[in-house]
Amino acid sequence: MSRRRTLSIALIGTKFMGRAHSNAWRQAPRFFDLPADVRMAVLCGRDAAATREAAAKLGWENAATDWRAVVDDARLDALDICTPNDLHAEIAIAAARAGKAIICEKPLARNLREALQMVGAVKSARVTNMLCHNYRRVPAIALARQMIERGEMGKRVYHFRARYAQDWIADENFPLVWRLQADKAGSGALGDLGAHIVDLARFLVGEIDSISALSSTFIKKRRSKPGGALRTVDVDDAFCAIGKFRNGALLNLEATRFARGRKNHLSFEINGSGGSIVFDLEKMNRLRFFDRRDRAHAHGFRDIIVTEPSHPYLENWWPPGHLLGYEHSVIHTVADFVCAVVSGKRVRPDFEDGFETQRVLDAIQRSGAQRGKPIRVSR
Amino acid sequence: MSRRRTLSIALIGTKFMGRAHSNAWRQAPRFFDLPADVRMAVLCGRDAAATREAAAKLGWENAATDWRAVVDDARLDALDICTPNDLHAEIAIAAARAGKAIICEKPLARNLREALQMVGAVKSARVTNMLCHNYRRVPAIALARQMIERGEMGKRVYHFRARYAQDWIADENFPLVWRLQADKAGSGALGDLGAHIVDLARFLVGEIDSISALSSTFIKKRRSKPGGALRTVDVDDAFCAIGKFRNGALLNLEATRFARGRKNHLSFEINGSGGSIVFDLEKMNRLRFFDRRDRAHAHGFRDIIVTEPSHPYLENWWPPGHLLGYEHSVIHTVADFVCAVVSGKRVRPDFEDGFETQRVLDAIQRSGAQRGKPIRVSR
Amino acid sequence: MSRRRTLSIALIGTKFMGRAHSNAWRQAPRFFDLPADVRMAVLCGRDAAATREAAAKLGWENAATDWRAVVDDARLDALDICTPNDLHAEIAIAAARAGKAIICEKPLARNLREALQMVGAVKSARVTNMLCHNYRRVPAIALARQMIERGEMGKRVYHFRARYAQDWIADENFPLVWRLQADKAGSGALGDLGAHIVDLARFLVGEIDSISALSSTFIKKRRSKPGGALRTVDVDDAFCAIGKFRNGALLNLEATRFARGRKNHLSFEINGSGGSIVFDLEKMNRLRFFDRRDRAHAHGFRDIIVTEPSHPYLENWWPPGHLLGYEHSVIHTVADFVCAVVSGKRVRPDFEDGFETQRVLDAIQRSGAQRGKPIRVSR
Amino acid sequence: MSRRRTLSIALIGTKFMGRAHSNAWRQAPRFFDLPADVRMAVLCGRDAAATREAAAKLGWENAATDWRAVVDDARLDALDICTPNDLHAEIAIAAARAGKAIICEKPLARNLREALQMVGAVKSARVTNMLCHNYRRVPAIALARQMIERGEMGKRVYHFRARYAQDWIADENFPLVWRLQADKAGSGALGDLGAHIVDLARFLVGEIDSISALSSTFIKKRRSKPGGALRTVDVDDAFCAIGKFRNGALLNLEATRFARGRKNHLSFEINGSGGSIVFDLEKMNRLRFFDRRDRAHAHGFRDIIVTEPSHPYLENWWPPGHLLGYEHSVIHTVADFVCAVVSGKRVRPDFEDGFETQRVLDAIQRSGAQRGKPIRVSR
Repeated sequence: MSRRRTLSIALIGTKFMGRAHSNAWRQAPRFFDLPADVRMAVLCGRDAAATREAAAKLGWENAATDWRAVVDDARLDALDICTPNDLHAEIAIAAARAGKAIICEKPLARNLREALQMVGAVKSARVTNMLCHNYRRVPAIALARQMIERGEMGKRVYHFRARYAQDWIADENFPLVWRLQADKAGSGALGDLGAHIVDLARFLVGEIDSISALSSTFIKKRRSKPGGALRTVDVDDAFCAIGKFRNGALLNLEATRFARGRKNHLSFEINGSGGSIVFDLEKMNRLRFFDRRDRAHAHGFRDIIVTEPSHPYLENWWPPGHLLGYEHSVIHTVADFVCAVVSGKRVRPDFEDGFETQRVLDAIQRSGAQRGKPIRVSR
Repeated sequence: MSRRRTLSIALIGTKFMGRAHSNAWRQAPRFFDLPADVRMAVLCGRDAAATREAAAKLGWENAATDWRAVVDDARLDALDICTPNDLHAEIAIAAARAGKAIICEKPLARNLREALQMVGAVKSARVTNMLCHNYRRVPAIALARQMIERGEMGKRVYHFRARYAQDWIADENFPLVWRLQADKAGSGALGDLGAHIVDLARFLVGEIDSISALSSTFIKKRRSKPGGALRTVDVDDAFCAIGKFRNGALLNLEATRFARGRKNHLSFEINGSGGSIVFDLEKMNRLRFFDRRDRAHAHGFRDIIVTEPSHPYLENWWPPGHLLGYEHSVIHTVADFVCAVVSGKRVRPDFEDGFETQRVLDAIQRSGAQRGKPIRVSR
Repeated sequence: MSRRRTLSIALIGTKFMGRAHSNAWRQAPRFFDLPADVRMAVLCGRDAAATREAAAKLGWENAATDWRAVVDDARLDALDICTPNDLHAEIAIAAARAGKAIICEKPLARNLREALQMVGAVKSARVTNMLCHNYRRVPAIALARQMIERGEMGKRVYHFRARYAQDWIADENFPLVWRLQADKAGSGALGDLGAHIVDLARFLVGEIDSISALSSTFIKKRRSKPGGALRTVDVDDAFCAIGKFRNGALLNLEATRFARGRKNHLSFEINGSGGSIVFDLEKMNRLRFFDRRDRAHAHGFRDIIVTEPSHPYLENWWPPGHLLGYEHSVIHTVADFVCAVVSGKRVRPDFEDGFETQRVLDAIQRSGAQRGKPIRVSR
Repeated sequence: MSRRRTLSIALIGTKFMGRAHSNAWRQAPRFFDLPADVRMAVLCGRDAAATREAAAKLGWENAATDWRAVVDDARLDALDICTPNDLHAEIAIAAARAGKAIICEKPLARNLREALQMVGAVKSARVTNMLCHNYRRVPAIALARQMIERGEMGKRVYHFRARYAQDWIADENFPLVWRLQADKAGSGALGDLGAHIVDLARFLVGEIDSISALSSTFIKKRRSKPGGALRTVDVDDAFCAIGKFRNGALLNLEATRFARGRKNHLSFEINGSGGSIVFDLEKMNRLRFFDRRDRAHAHGFRDIIVTEPSHPYLENWWPPGHLLGYEHSVIHTVADFVCAVVSGKRVRPDFEDGFETQRVLDAIQRSGAQRGKPIRVSR
């Protein structure tokens, strides 16, 4: 009988995503029957003292500051990349060359060129690769996908519209953090929020054929800190886009950081020939579903509480009606990544998905730069 | 003391809009202190017997079948046009020449040329003219406008997004009624539903500068009746559009008759620098409002039940919490029209508004025909 | 062929209920195919000038101030009683003796004794009699009843809980109007609000076997007008009650005028062996329904928009998704009353229903006076 | 400088609560700056193999089967009791005598006598003691308490109504598990669900003065397993209760396991002189709040998303709009327990709170047994 394998993990990044992924690595083995043991080997950050403290707090055995050394450490099996976007490509390519399995935070890259290089690297190295679009693994969204696959929405999809709205920079005095700088983030709402809804569009409906987009930077100058000099904001505050899917469905996307009162409002609606589905991340344990087959007098959107054992991922958690939170979607992602590393099978979304998503983001950006000119998302 | 005036009204059209406007003419004087008495003089329809029956049922003194004779009847003061769209221009122009005050159902016309002629006619004749975009007078929407004018949404508007979704033709066996024929309706979802949300965009945010749009006819052939021959559907089933307002806000519009479960779902959201407003016509007595000035720990969208005496039009109705319905918006429209006829003051939306709205509809149609090419809504 | 009958109606009362019923008499013939014509003959009020003015505004041919003369007028067929509660019994008994059909606002009477006399009078006189519990004819509530009758809630009912909450007297400076005086109103929240939910309990689930109740007068003294003397409030501000139905279901009722933010919040939930139903009058065009027979993964409360032609009363109104308001429930009531007067058949709720409801209100009042002592609603 | 203390914990129970508490012990140190280190020393269960497996999965160093040996283990500092209710008293009393700090799952005991003994034991031993009514530490509920304390609900409370509804035994074929047996569970919905809402009533409004209650066992016989013999169900399936608080507010409680579609529906509404608060555990990241001080035209219930850093416990978690789940309330409870053990200060709810709650449960049970006879919750 074969010995049970242990995967040694390194995570690069100690901020919001670093914390969320650390939690996922700690929790996944407690709730899921993973095919391997997980060893939280190294946390890697820029500042030595802060990283040591974070490693202790977050449950990592060791702390490191040199990601190249981490990548080259032969005792490690997998790398989890939670850095700002400008390091994704460099680290991922190095990790692929070092034969590591890779899970990378979204967006895959700052631009299409980087994305293409990353895909090339993981393909050449034949390493397991996954992009952390964790919302695919929110149970309600996973259920939506199942229902579409089973035909419960009918044979045709007519509309997919999604919106990701937040308000954390709506105040004009909010400082110019890295997420508002093009060299670090690549783009603004587009890569941060838009990447999620483009990924969901592809996950739930299919590939996108063409796109027209507008974008806007509402507050054009900000200070990097209170009292600092005013600097130009060179990323988008918001965009909206329309397009068509290859299957003929209409696409409507919008992302903004300027919607007062919307905290993490990723919402979508899909209209199919047989029904409709509505989701809102701020009510993430719910899925609303309209079924044309219901008896006529009792037609209506159902408000499904997605906490039943028969729902995706739920049999590992609590009894019905006991809600899950944001972090669970990351736990599910990590759990599936571990399975993929062990089985060697493709897991979605992977870097190729990230590249396809980046194509769409790129088209949105180019169309926006040309005031809405339609762009083919060519292949 | 001056004698109280009596306005004699003729209404052309006996179907859905004919019924709704008849009701408004009957009810307005019962609930509002109008500056004139209203005489429901003539109902005009195509079929003599059916029109006689409708006139009796709906409260009109006389029935007629020749709209030209009605227009020329010197005893009549005002004309209410509730016909299919292909007759709007001809009747309205004749009525203007005959010196009648005119209230006309939306959309103003089938195209920009007709709209321009109608504006010219009422301007030349200097007659009171109004377009029945009744949703402006849903109390919650009128309240939204008041709040924006008072500055409760802040100084800037960032986003306006509206969607008008229905599902009554989603079944592929639904017949090819007049609303699905270009010669009678001008367009499909665009003129029928899109006109409403374009009007609201202009009412709530301002004029539109440019637009990119896509449209689709999902079911390309239908039968005019069960067993009849298949004919091509030459109007749009749905469209989506993005654009910019002159004030810099982003615009996102969508209208469809293919959203299963959405019965009369006109919804919009406005994001301003000081707050956000959300509305859904299927919950038309509510307005949701987020106010950045609220204490931080109690931030949240308020669900305002718009039935207080201090809300627009409400002091004429029932106590707080007693809901109004669809038809009340038409009653409010008619009441304001009567005031305008008596005062001689401009009432909004008028034919010029209809023309401006038609410009936008025209731009959407042209952009859609060119697969999203950006169109300037020129002036 | 028999000549079509005309019913001549007199209405007593000119305030809120007088206005709502006048509207119903005007509107019912416009939307329903009634079996008789309706003549709005006389409006009767206390003040001659105000009543004349109201009659003109509300559409009545004549105005009167002496209700006895109205009752005795042989040209009148039916009487609609919209006075304060202290006149219900006297007028109804006189009207019954005069052979008039009677529709009376709720609550039937101030107390059980009066209610009994009223039932005796209409039974002796064999006149059509109806109690205006208009909420039975809110389409969503009528649909709930249909669904229960069809067995869609299963064979057994386990729970009925209803709450009627308002806040219009929550301010301690609100004056001592007639509805807060026992001699005129009989009781406070009990008769005004409680009567509605007791009627719905009986309508939807069945007769009540026993009851325990508590009541409270939160503000014990009020002024009849600003600056006036403080007087004791001798009616209840709120009550809550629990009990059992004869069929074994548990009952939970609450009514209050002290729930800030609740404007006209009549809500109920019914739990049966096969499903649950939830209703809220502040969203009166909706009915929420949980059906245990749904596929497990798609279980959830459906939000039915009760505006389809197949829903009760709806085929007489507007297309799907076009909402009805408060007043429509009164129109439906009057329409059904006219049918009953012509057919001679019993219409529900009638005075006997009012008496049964009064039994329950009486038990609640007696139990409340004894701090919750269980009371048998005996027969 | 003093050495940082380490608390060694033992947990008894391996099922739902054992899993939830194990998770809390693992997670609390990762997200909160606790004043001591936590050592997850021993997990104790009945079955040796299963407990060993659970200990490994849930993160405990050791497994044990003899709770008495665990209690007597001098190396352990604190005991977490997650057994069925019939063992609470025996274990807690032994643990107190052994000088252990104790956290115990609710309900404290099966009856008042046991509860009293438990209070006596912890008082004599002067050990830190806490009852795990974790819902007090759902951030939205903790926020509600803060808002009440700050006076945002006004000076008086008029109404508290709570309902805890589930449906997991509504099917008559559901087996007779321990929660449906009086000797093990003490009671049915009463102790399981009722204990939570009585605790919240006391937490949010104050002590209860008197109570009237009804209870029911809808399915009187069940099989312990499919094909087994029918046995009598000797606990309640549901109860409802009304009462008064010492401060004069009206109380209305209901708990049931027979509400189809309600999965974990703990909801409450509080009406104060200055506002109202509404909560629903199935939407646990939300608190609805009506503030009478809002401008009149913008009155309405606010839907607060309780995920801001300023909200209770939230600064330790994710950015705004990223939801928490059920388990977080247990983590918060454990974190506060650790603080209390180290500081030696009283933490609420403690065993005395449990005893007070048990008084109310006892009164409900006795009143229910006497068909609603009012019972004084005496002191």
